[in-house]
Amino acid sequence: MKTVPEKIIVSIGGNALIRRGEAGTVEEQFENARVACEYIARLSGAGKNIIITHGNGPVVGNIVIRNEAARNSVPPMPLYICDADSEGGIGFMIQQTLYNGLHRIHKIKDVVTIVTQVVVDPLDPAFKNPSKPIGPFYTSGEARSLEARGWAMREDSHRGFRRVVPSPRPKKVVEAAVIRSLAESGVIVIAAGGGGVPVQENEDGTLKGVDAVIDKDLATSLLARETKAERFINLTQIEMVYLNFGKPDQKGIREMDLSDARRYMDAGEFAPGSMGPKIEAAIEFLENGGKDVIITSPEMIESAIKGEGGTRIYP
Amino acid sequence: MKTVPEKIIVSIGGNALIRRGEAGTVEEQFENARVACEYIARLSGAGKNIIITHGNGPVVGNIVIRNEAARNSVPPMPLYICDADSEGGIGFMIQQTLYNGLHRIHKIKDVVTIVTQVVVDPLDPAFKNPSKPIGPFYTSGEARSLEARGWAMREDSHRGFRRVVPSPRPKKVVEAAVIRSLAESGVIVIAAGGGGVPVQENEDGTLKGVDAVIDKDLATSLLARETKAERFINLTQIEMVYLNFGKPDQKGIREMDLSDARRYMDAGEFAPGSMGPKIEAAIEFLENGGKDVIITSPEMIESAIKGEGGTRIYP
Repeated sequence: MKTVPEKIIVSIGGNALIRRGEAGTVEEQFENARVACEYIARLSGAGKNIIITHGNGPVVGNIVIRNEAARNSVPPMPLYICDADSEGGIGFMIQQTLYNGLHRIHKIKDVVTIVTQVVVDPLDPAFKNPSKPIGPFYTSGEARSLEARGWAMREDSHRGFRRVVPSPRPKKVVEAAVIRSLAESGVIVIAAGGGGVPVQENEDGTLKGVDAVIDKDLATSLLARETKAERFINLTQIEMVYLNFGKPDQKGIREMDLSDARRYMDAGEFAPGSMGPKIEAAIEFLENGGKDVIITSPEMIESAIKGEGGTRIYP
Repeated sequence: MKTVPEKIIVSIGGNALIRRGEAGTVEEQFENARVACEYIARLSGAGKNIIITHGNGPVVGNIVIRNEAARNSVPPMPLYICDADSEGGIGFMIQQTLYNGLHRIHKIKDVVTIVTQVVVDPLDPAFKNPSKPIGPFYTSGEARSLEARGWAMREDSHRGFRRVVPSPRPKKVVEAAVIRSLAESGVIVIAAGGGGVPVQENEDGTLKGVDAVIDKDLATSLLARETKAERFINLTQIEMVYLNFGKPDQKGIREMDLSDARRYMDAGEFAPGSMGPKIEAAIEFLENGGKDVIITSPEMIESAIKGEGGTRIYP
């Protein structure tokens, strides 16, 4: 009997591609992608089937800034097209870096990026309360005229005003069946970049892009369930999950089970928009048949898999 | 015995998405894509396996303009990342429009966009003679300072100076095997957008992006051969191929065989950068086992297939 290879979904944080303090040149992004991709290449070389998702935070922010800078010369793109553009650009970078990593260890496999649409519910309460800041900072005068354009603007800790957009929950990954079948045939698939392009489903089943941002951790968890992945490795900037994070008595968590995770979550240990969605995504995955979640930094994945670093969450 | 469905590669011209005289808003692009996609949906519904390629001319031009406009706020992307971005954005648009077209005729199929890398030869003579103009127009003063940046600049018919980049011949589509197997499993695949992201292959087999533009007709012809497509439908702005094009005695060609095509080509009937590469792509396809090429406009495809319009080229 042929053994079925384990299917692993690996999520690369947007801040793992452009790190804080970096300008975000393409050279920096390639170099940052290399660290994660070298490890993923080894994982693939060891016979695992791999699906990769990634954030797009700083990258799509730059696309939005370019979009606004040229507004008077070329028609600006709606946010969902900026998202789709970033799936192409970042997908290409990861795809090539991973392809190169596989070549270097002589474990050649196909690597592809699938541009991914993710369905959200137009009645999601997030649409009444846009909360996710995107793009450049504006003065209060600019902010007022942008509100007239229909944008929701919010003051951002004295640095100026930013556009805020809804962050609705992902309901369905449109391309999930293809992503699953490719991964099961041994192709490494990059998908749901930046949480996917948000779309709404009309009554006749047709789709339409919406200006929103889907949390990539929740989108990854959904894709993991839809593709029946066994393991979910979530790569971020910090080595592990902490209790009392950022306080003098912060304490790293090496292992926790589902009930610990729920309890800490309810106690408000994990910041919204940061560790919160990662833990929420882990809980959803484990509640739905997932076997194992690891949260760690790209540099630590190898040790984390061996149980020597990072945070492991199990059912 | 099960019949193997015919595999058709359909190429949508970049100018079929943003038409001359249009500003290039997203609404215009979706509407333009709809015409071609409605027909492709019917073709797919009739049991054909479909691969779609597309141009990116006006779209990537706008991305480059945005890139330059924001150069002082965010690091500019190299051209090959602009290409990859456009594969994501245009791919998404076609993918969704086609998905919707299939839903409207109740013939639901998976549609995916594969971000595609196309290998070029760094020794291609095109690298010594950059000829493809891209991006905005500059004054002669600006052009001189851009030359200092390493760009090749060329004066463009009194409208100012533009950057010109190499247009090397495509040698290999990196993701061809996956594209072929998806298409043969009945998934509609959008690939090699804008001719693909140009990459060079290093001695150790690794890849690296290069700043160039690959002609999408030649890339489509290569992909058609690599995926063993039987038929190649090339959608452009004009209804058919003409002899003496643009002259008072221009004459539409309804049908020609390979030797006619070669003869007209040698006689200089087809303009370089316009109909030239389409005929060259057709010749390469037919010389390598392709059965049939149609060149026509999106509005005319249905009649062209029936032999009532467009230009058909056969071996």
